[in-house]
Amino acid sequence: MQKIEHIGIAVKNLEQSNSLFKKLLGQEHYKTEEVKTESVITSFFRTGQSKIELLQATDETSAIHKYVEKYGEGVHHIAFAVTDIYQEMERLEKQGFQLLNKEPKRGADNKLVCFVHPKSANGVLVELCQEISE
Amino acid sequence: MQKIEHIGIAVKNLEQSNSLFKKLLGQEHYKTEEVKTESVITSFFRTGQSKIELLQATDETSAIHKYVEKYGEGVHHIAFAVTDIYQEMERLEKQGFQLLNKEPKRGADNKLVCFVHPKSANGVLVELCQEISE
Repeated sequence: MQKIEHIGIAVKNLEQSNSLFKKLLGQEHYKTEEVKTESVITSFFRTGQSKIELLQATDETSAIHKYVEKYGEGVHHIAFAVTDIYQEMERLEKQGFQLLNKEPKRGADNKLVCFVHPKSANGVLVELCQEISE
Repeated sequence: MQKIEHIGIAVKNLEQSNSLFKKLLGQEHYKTEEVKTESVITSFFRTGQSKIELLQATDETSAIHKYVEKYGEGVHHIAFAVTDIYQEMERLEKQGFQLLNKEPKRGADNKLVCFVHPKSANGVLVELCQEISE
């Protein structure tokens, strides 16, 4: 785990939240990206060496839709940057953490990602993410 | 807002959570600190230029006790480093954010801190913190 890559925040309305976080962070979001496989649209803000990722569901099948229905808007996950996601997944599984996907999957922002179940991580949905070099 | 200074995570048992986060982050916590005015005991882990702060309530008056009772363990707040907390508080108040304390107060880790109400920040409890230079 090299650093906090980003904090994912579930929102209801990306446009309104982009405006709110612009006021909070004192800067514009620098990109918007839809991840169709996850039914989300995301936007990113920089803060130091990390990012804030806002996530809005694009349909009711999205995990973000279910999260917002159950808990309201708020912090959804914490993502840590890793250099070798396969190695980190193996290490964490051996340590007793429950991984939510057996193989890394493609996430937003050109990343391979894997999630750790919050039940095994103090209520925190942890994401591992590795930059895809192409 | 210069960077994510730390992410605060509410836990029930600091000793058990120190052990869990040691496995997750692959390193030991580097300090423990009690903040009597907030009725919490905290521990800190480094990750890149940010920190993970675990918080356990020391009595039932603590906001952390109330949080854990209501929501369970999980992400409690996101703290951003600022260079001039008075200026940032004034800027945010003018932008419509609701501050939870009118004056900065002393927090853990040698910081002056101020919280922003989650209702005005997309469900996220935001902390501003400025290093105290003595």
